[in-house]
Amino acid sequence: MEASVKRRKIEIREGDSVRFHNNVGFCIGTGRMGLALQQAYQEQLRLVQEEIGFSHIRGHGLFSDDMAIYQEYLEDGVRKVEYNYTYLDMVMDSYRRLGLSPFLELGFMPDKLASGRQTLFYWKANTTPPRDYGLWADMVQQLLRHLMERYGADEVVTWPIEVWNEPNLPGFWEKADREAYLKLFAVTFRAVKEVDPRFGVGGPAICGVQDAVWMRAFLDFCRREGLFPDFITRHHYTTEPPEASGHYGYAKLSDPEYGFANLQSTRDIVDSYPEFAGLPIHLTEFNTSYIPNCPLHDTNQNAAYLAHQLSRLGDVNESYSYWTFGDIFEEQGVPFSPFHGGFGLVANGGIPKPTFWTFAFYKRLQEFGGVCAYRDDAAVILRREDGSCQGVVWNHKSGAGDLNLDFALPVPDGVYTLVTKTVDEDCCNPLKVWHDLGEPSCPDEGQNRLLRESARPFVATRQLTAQEGQIAFSLLAKRFGVIWFSLTKRRFVGDRGYDYHRAVPE
Amino acid sequence: MEASVKRRKIEIREGDSVRFHNNVGFCIGTGRMGLALQQAYQEQLRLVQEEIGFSHIRGHGLFSDDMAIYQEYLEDGVRKVEYNYTYLDMVMDSYRRLGLSPFLELGFMPDKLASGRQTLFYWKANTTPPRDYGLWADMVQQLLRHLMERYGADEVVTWPIEVWNEPNLPGFWEKADREAYLKLFAVTFRAVKEVDPRFGVGGPAICGVQDAVWMRAFLDFCRREGLFPDFITRHHYTTEPPEASGHYGYAKLSDPEYGFANLQSTRDIVDSYPEFAGLPIHLTEFNTSYIPNCPLHDTNQNAAYLAHQLSRLGDVNESYSYWTFGDIFEEQGVPFSPFHGGFGLVANGGIPKPTFWTFAFYKRLQEFGGVCAYRDDAAVILRREDGSCQGVVWNHKSGAGDLNLDFALPVPDGVYTLVTKTVDEDCCNPLKVWHDLGEPSCPDEGQNRLLRESARPFVATRQLTAQEGQIAFSLLAKRFGVIWFSLTKRRFVGDRGYDYHRAVPE
Amino acid sequence: MEASVKRRKIEIREGDSVRFHNNVGFCIGTGRMGLALQQAYQEQLRLVQEEIGFSHIRGHGLFSDDMAIYQEYLEDGVRKVEYNYTYLDMVMDSYRRLGLSPFLELGFMPDKLASGRQTLFYWKANTTPPRDYGLWADMVQQLLRHLMERYGADEVVTWPIEVWNEPNLPGFWEKADREAYLKLFAVTFRAVKEVDPRFGVGGPAICGVQDAVWMRAFLDFCRREGLFPDFITRHHYTTEPPEASGHYGYAKLSDPEYGFANLQSTRDIVDSYPEFAGLPIHLTEFNTSYIPNCPLHDTNQNAAYLAHQLSRLGDVNESYSYWTFGDIFEEQGVPFSPFHGGFGLVANGGIPKPTFWTFAFYKRLQEFGGVCAYRDDAAVILRREDGSCQGVVWNHKSGAGDLNLDFALPVPDGVYTLVTKTVDEDCCNPLKVWHDLGEPSCPDEGQNRLLRESARPFVATRQLTAQEGQIAFSLLAKRFGVIWFSLTKRRFVGDRGYDYHRAVPE
Amino acid sequence: MEASVKRRKIEIREGDSVRFHNNVGFCIGTGRMGLALQQAYQEQLRLVQEEIGFSHIRGHGLFSDDMAIYQEYLEDGVRKVEYNYTYLDMVMDSYRRLGLSPFLELGFMPDKLASGRQTLFYWKANTTPPRDYGLWADMVQQLLRHLMERYGADEVVTWPIEVWNEPNLPGFWEKADREAYLKLFAVTFRAVKEVDPRFGVGGPAICGVQDAVWMRAFLDFCRREGLFPDFITRHHYTTEPPEASGHYGYAKLSDPEYGFANLQSTRDIVDSYPEFAGLPIHLTEFNTSYIPNCPLHDTNQNAAYLAHQLSRLGDVNESYSYWTFGDIFEEQGVPFSPFHGGFGLVANGGIPKPTFWTFAFYKRLQEFGGVCAYRDDAAVILRREDGSCQGVVWNHKSGAGDLNLDFALPVPDGVYTLVTKTVDEDCCNPLKVWHDLGEPSCPDEGQNRLLRESARPFVATRQLTAQEGQIAFSLLAKRFGVIWFSLTKRRFVGDRGYDYHRAVPE
Repeated sequence: MEASVKRRKIEIREGDSVRFHNNVGFCIGTGRMGLALQQAYQEQLRLVQEEIGFSHIRGHGLFSDDMAIYQEYLEDGVRKVEYNYTYLDMVMDSYRRLGLSPFLELGFMPDKLASGRQTLFYWKANTTPPRDYGLWADMVQQLLRHLMERYGADEVVTWPIEVWNEPNLPGFWEKADREAYLKLFAVTFRAVKEVDPRFGVGGPAICGVQDAVWMRAFLDFCRREGLFPDFITRHHYTTEPPEASGHYGYAKLSDPEYGFANLQSTRDIVDSYPEFAGLPIHLTEFNTSYIPNCPLHDTNQNAAYLAHQLSRLGDVNESYSYWTFGDIFEEQGVPFSPFHGGFGLVANGGIPKPTFWTFAFYKRLQEFGGVCAYRDDAAVILRREDGSCQGVVWNHKSGAGDLNLDFALPVPDGVYTLVTKTVDEDCCNPLKVWHDLGEPSCPDEGQNRLLRESARPFVATRQLTAQEGQIAFSLLAKRFGVIWFSLTKRRFVGDRGYDYHRAVPE
Repeated sequence: MEASVKRRKIEIREGDSVRFHNNVGFCIGTGRMGLALQQAYQEQLRLVQEEIGFSHIRGHGLFSDDMAIYQEYLEDGVRKVEYNYTYLDMVMDSYRRLGLSPFLELGFMPDKLASGRQTLFYWKANTTPPRDYGLWADMVQQLLRHLMERYGADEVVTWPIEVWNEPNLPGFWEKADREAYLKLFAVTFRAVKEVDPRFGVGGPAICGVQDAVWMRAFLDFCRREGLFPDFITRHHYTTEPPEASGHYGYAKLSDPEYGFANLQSTRDIVDSYPEFAGLPIHLTEFNTSYIPNCPLHDTNQNAAYLAHQLSRLGDVNESYSYWTFGDIFEEQGVPFSPFHGGFGLVANGGIPKPTFWTFAFYKRLQEFGGVCAYRDDAAVILRREDGSCQGVVWNHKSGAGDLNLDFALPVPDGVYTLVTKTVDEDCCNPLKVWHDLGEPSCPDEGQNRLLRESARPFVATRQLTAQEGQIAFSLLAKRFGVIWFSLTKRRFVGDRGYDYHRAVPE
Repeated sequence: MEASVKRRKIEIREGDSVRFHNNVGFCIGTGRMGLALQQAYQEQLRLVQEEIGFSHIRGHGLFSDDMAIYQEYLEDGVRKVEYNYTYLDMVMDSYRRLGLSPFLELGFMPDKLASGRQTLFYWKANTTPPRDYGLWADMVQQLLRHLMERYGADEVVTWPIEVWNEPNLPGFWEKADREAYLKLFAVTFRAVKEVDPRFGVGGPAICGVQDAVWMRAFLDFCRREGLFPDFITRHHYTTEPPEASGHYGYAKLSDPEYGFANLQSTRDIVDSYPEFAGLPIHLTEFNTSYIPNCPLHDTNQNAAYLAHQLSRLGDVNESYSYWTFGDIFEEQGVPFSPFHGGFGLVANGGIPKPTFWTFAFYKRLQEFGGVCAYRDDAAVILRREDGSCQGVVWNHKSGAGDLNLDFALPVPDGVYTLVTKTVDEDCCNPLKVWHDLGEPSCPDEGQNRLLRESARPFVATRQLTAQEGQIAFSLLAKRFGVIWFSLTKRRFVGDRGYDYHRAVPE
Repeated sequence: MEASVKRRKIEIREGDSVRFHNNVGFCIGTGRMGLALQQAYQEQLRLVQEEIGFSHIRGHGLFSDDMAIYQEYLEDGVRKVEYNYTYLDMVMDSYRRLGLSPFLELGFMPDKLASGRQTLFYWKANTTPPRDYGLWADMVQQLLRHLMERYGADEVVTWPIEVWNEPNLPGFWEKADREAYLKLFAVTFRAVKEVDPRFGVGGPAICGVQDAVWMRAFLDFCRREGLFPDFITRHHYTTEPPEASGHYGYAKLSDPEYGFANLQSTRDIVDSYPEFAGLPIHLTEFNTSYIPNCPLHDTNQNAAYLAHQLSRLGDVNESYSYWTFGDIFEEQGVPFSPFHGGFGLVANGGIPKPTFWTFAFYKRLQEFGGVCAYRDDAAVILRREDGSCQGVVWNHKSGAGDLNLDFALPVPDGVYTLVTKTVDEDCCNPLKVWHDLGEPSCPDEGQNRLLRESARPFVATRQLTAQEGQIAFSLLAKRFGVIWFSLTKRRFVGDRGYDYHRAVPE
């Protein structure tokens, strides 16, 4: 297979600096709020927080009926409203324990407050406007006041607030009625700011269809109404429409440049409004495919494609929230097997998918800090002043064979330790293991353990010597491989009498 | 490096059966009893029990001063004895919580009961005979009665009892005084049986020097005295004498056949006594080197050599207890670094050494059961009636290059899943990672985590098809590699619409 | 308040023996199966298992839509059935981890398999007959086969199976259509036995209304159809109908003798059929009130009343399953506060209610074994041959003041330790603490901790001396108090120089 | 017993303010460093940190041989020094995990660095001066540099450093040689400041005998040598000399005023030196008895006496470190039973002693903050601006009967919740339970559990109404009782339909 290896030379010089905004740890998506009550959900989220570590979490269904917040009763023949925060508090408590703050998406509609019967998803989210905007505003305000009392006002006002989800899609907002959405936004915006003007509120949370038209209409409306949103939100998916087959949908990845251009167009629209220019844009959802039953999500290809995405998404966006952290998710019903193409970074059974590690690797970069010294479509490299480096390399192009990267980095002379963690189809591919095991729909504990064991990066170290201010090494990114590396000066003291080479024959 | 690969063909036929007594899970060695109070000791032992799972544990120092059992005081000018079981109970409780029973080694000597001042080890084990054999017998009896009261008589009588340790070495038993040992054995044997004749009692726990002479003397003595030991014990180490350098000693492995022959000679001696023929022999200690600062213990070579040992040690012995489970151990002082060549399966920091996995693999075989269908000096293979197989293969010969094994196994036709777990210098070698990191004497938490991540077997699966009653596959055991494999029929149902090959492009 | 203390003398003589069938640990009730996915549910169940320890668990909703088992799809225009066991396995795995086996209640109806739209509860349980009994039978059989494959046939056949729940109530079974139920029973019984005749199957799971008529009809039907149920099931609640007020219902306890007589009448009916005489009767549900929002459940009065019940329920029944273990329960919606009068032994927040301890105390008696030496309406006392005793005493009668019990028990002379654990309104009353705190709907972590601290029995010990074969002591059961006691010989050795009375001045 | 109740009226007025320096959480004592390796030690410390929460920990033996820091070896016939930090790092890591920083006591002497053979304690602490003060200084400096590298310089320089322990006692410092100590102090002080002048260094760590002479000599020396210690240290014990009996010593409590006067005298001495006036004084050890086998430590009397001490010790001292947190401690050998009169707040078996709760209660006060509104010899009360209060009351005088405190506190009108936690001989007295159980030397798990259950404060709540700006309530402190209380406004909303008094009959 030698023939299929491409070589690329990456040489960095002292002082090289490239723009790279890495905010991977800011936010992660989740299945609907009510699922946060579940034990497996919490276990998966704990794993994500331990190995990656996000600061915010965003999902649907805060006001949906399974959260049971909005309640009505009759008193002397009069219909009255009361609020139930039992489950809300359980969910928020659980997030706080894991170091997470919510990115509050206000939606969907309680059945009893709804103007219509339209529902979406297996779990029947009501996606119609409120029958009474005043009741909606009251519900929002009481919720915020309750949260401020329980978690402290100074804390809660830092939680970003987004109004509804994907109102430009008729399934998510009846008839994709833009006027109704703008009204909802205005009512909500003002209701929130009345509670505390420190709250950040944004929208319009659109996805795909007619996005430019919606974005302009949204900004025009805000200008007209004198509303100054604190940030702009939209979504970002990067596959062709899927082809359905049984429980699944198969989708092809689109050219990433197409998506990046689309993101730039939103940036340009926002910046074309003098009063809104430079407003932060949060991608409050992104993934490759937008369906929760797309086998692509479980593959190494997804991991490599995402590595490329994460190197670029910060260019024009403040943050980008992967949709979603785990596979406790019910939009298309209860999955029939652990590897069902769910959105999650973690498969049911507590199994990290390859993409999980892409996020872990970028989070390591975020913690490392330093200056971005290099970025292309297969690598991003950060460098500190002392010469130590961290980087991520990947090989996301289908059909392109393996990719060999020859690095030449500027470092002070001396001996270095290169640590690499590799995720590719050969060394970290639980989907293949599951397939080889016979695609069990309900793996037993032994199989689940094996799957977890097969889902860890391959760890290796090397010693390298820098001479004349430069260090050279190569990394082989196999098909759909993602590699994290760290290069640090080797500090060696050595113990009296210890000789590694005497213990390990050459 | 192709040139260095040797090939071997292993073909098994239906009905093949080879003798293989695998009792790897019976017993494991430990540093002195008093160390069981330590937290790191317990954490290492927990790891061992979770991943391997032994049923017994044996170590020195039950009666040594740090266990504080034997106490004296003056009353009206008279010296009296009292016993303190505070630490004993803490230690035994901790073993019981981890599913372990002690293999009770009775020794060493409390200072106040000793006839001399000779001590051994950094921790100053008194290794002289009792100044009063009656007091010794009382101490033993009271200990057993206390244990029976606390843990139940029916349980405690199943705990094997060994009298002293390595009395044939003058460091462990003053002057290696055989007559004194035989007296100790007789006194102890009778004292134990007086408490409850169901106890199993054995000896002489010898190691190396003049073993045949000692064994015959011991058996002659038992015959003469009418003592019928329940089992025989001895030790087994397989290196040349080490060369010292600073804190370390470097030892060469000896030809394994030399050791196996020596074990056979003990078996022959015992069987030559009609009344003792067939008595179980327990190797109450074995390892490669007999020093706790031999870097060899931390290597993949040790793991491979041990794989070979474990395929043979049951031939003439009932059990064999690896010396020791972990590196909380102080015979030569406190180690200066985690990889100091300790006896342990686990290095300090909770890092499994390669040899850890050799034991885990053999334990899986023990659980698998079935019939041994094949055994040579590089492989042992078990087979169940349904055709499923498990095996361990290894490559322990220094300088011999890689070893490719081509298997042909008799199984019913169909598709099979082959699971392999590989431990070799490239994929599971924490010692090298530690070396590459600069041999840190006190790894920080990040380094310890990396070391643990680098210390896990490489897991892989394949699908194989059996035709005409045979399945063929190859395993490559690299230098000092150990591989566990499992071959089972693939049960495939498949979910509606799921097509792995559509998700993963070829 | 001295005036309100009543005294009672309880004198037991050597050899006294009273019938007392204590099977408290056999089974516990639960909210619907789907709730078992929740984290708080599992935490409450873990607490229950650690402190009490049941062997079986029974609840509704196995086949309800949130468990997602029954699924349909169209293929070539034909409606086909498929089963999804993802959640089933998660639930059953969680039970097994906690040492529980399910008491399988087969119900309610998947919407797509239902013959009607009638639903019950906030969570919309479909309670209509199947539209196709063949599909129902297939669903049951596939479920059992799946469980047998996953958990082992020998294990699963020991899980009792009950057909539906309370079919004599029109809410639970459309129109309380008896003929339809009997048909369901017959179809199900035969389907289960076809899978494996070792399964135990029972019914008719009736509650209250027209119970005698239903029971006879059920037995007549079985006789006629040649069905031999393995056991009979019914329910048992002991309050008057509740009066509603806001979210709550207030119910008065009925005279316990009324309920016991009703249980006897069922026993008599069953025994009047020669072929069914002596069949075990399982009370698959019981509690005081039958509504999940009855503040009575959270009180000490409930605990004392239950202590009385537990002393008698085994008289004519094989087992009796308290409805329910915890307050994660949604039949009347999501509760607005932790103390909402739920059925549970544990309030949300992990707070044991007083009744929790009544069960813990009777479980201790069950473990103690021995012979029942005494039972009246305020005490039950077990005795072992060595004279050691355990008992539970209670004071359940409203308005009757405190109750002082003067015991005289036959024991060998010597010193004894009396251990008491007391639960009453003064010492273990989290409801009052919550009330004093202001009835917080969402207690913060500090309040929850205080509530848990206030919810533990008061522990005390005494030394007592038996003389002339008798020991005397008194216990004061305050209003609604429940006390567990244990009387054992005091084993005293004493340490050299230790003098308690010198350490603690009189 | 009414006759024996004394009444005291405590009336506080708005604005009342009393000096009260409560620094209870600053530091806690521990058995020698090497014991921190033990599992039971860590479990006890975890309990202490969870329920109380200290910020520093101080104990002996940092340089003693079991920590294995100072090592020598021969190279080419020359004796050389090397340091082993393996155990040091394990201990410090364990403290950091529990949120603790060490209060570093530099001592005792490694055998190989010692000038003599004098040892102290069962564990043989060498208490002689160094044979070479330069080697000592080097050992100290290397240790600090190692710690700074591992834990960060900015962190480590905040760890207070004390030179040696109780050099005025000949057992702790050979011949109580003052000149030698002053030399050690000067050498050490300068060595530490050379590493980093930010380190705080203090002494002379004296205890009892000739304290004024020593203190003046120390300060004179510092003045003369131009050393400016950052703080002064001394110890504080408050019993008469014990009377020995078997394993135990019985000591009578001394009049607390005697001790307070002694503390004041040290304060006065220090303040009499203009350059040292106001230097912080740390009591680096205090307890009632100074022997680790004094049954008094396990009693409620100790808890009440300590409550009094804690109300006063901050008057002239910056901090005061109770000696010790737990009973893993070996100065007089291994204890024979859990209640052996050890120094610890926690008895072996994880059982909190009454004194444990005294510390927990004062820590709650420290967290509460506010202003001290009242302090006498039975109560200390803190008050916040909103009127909420917390206090501790106690009854420490032997033979004085019960003490009833009638409080009148100034608060805004309204309803309040009074929470009390009571520890006294009747409700939280594990020593009595253990005694009643027969004083088992090795309690089994059931007994240990009962002991832990009996060792928790009795929790109660009341509702109280404030009228005309005042609230009145009474607390009954029984003999040796300690009570913590909290008074806060009751926030009541109430749920629709919930009526506590309807659920609980009067």
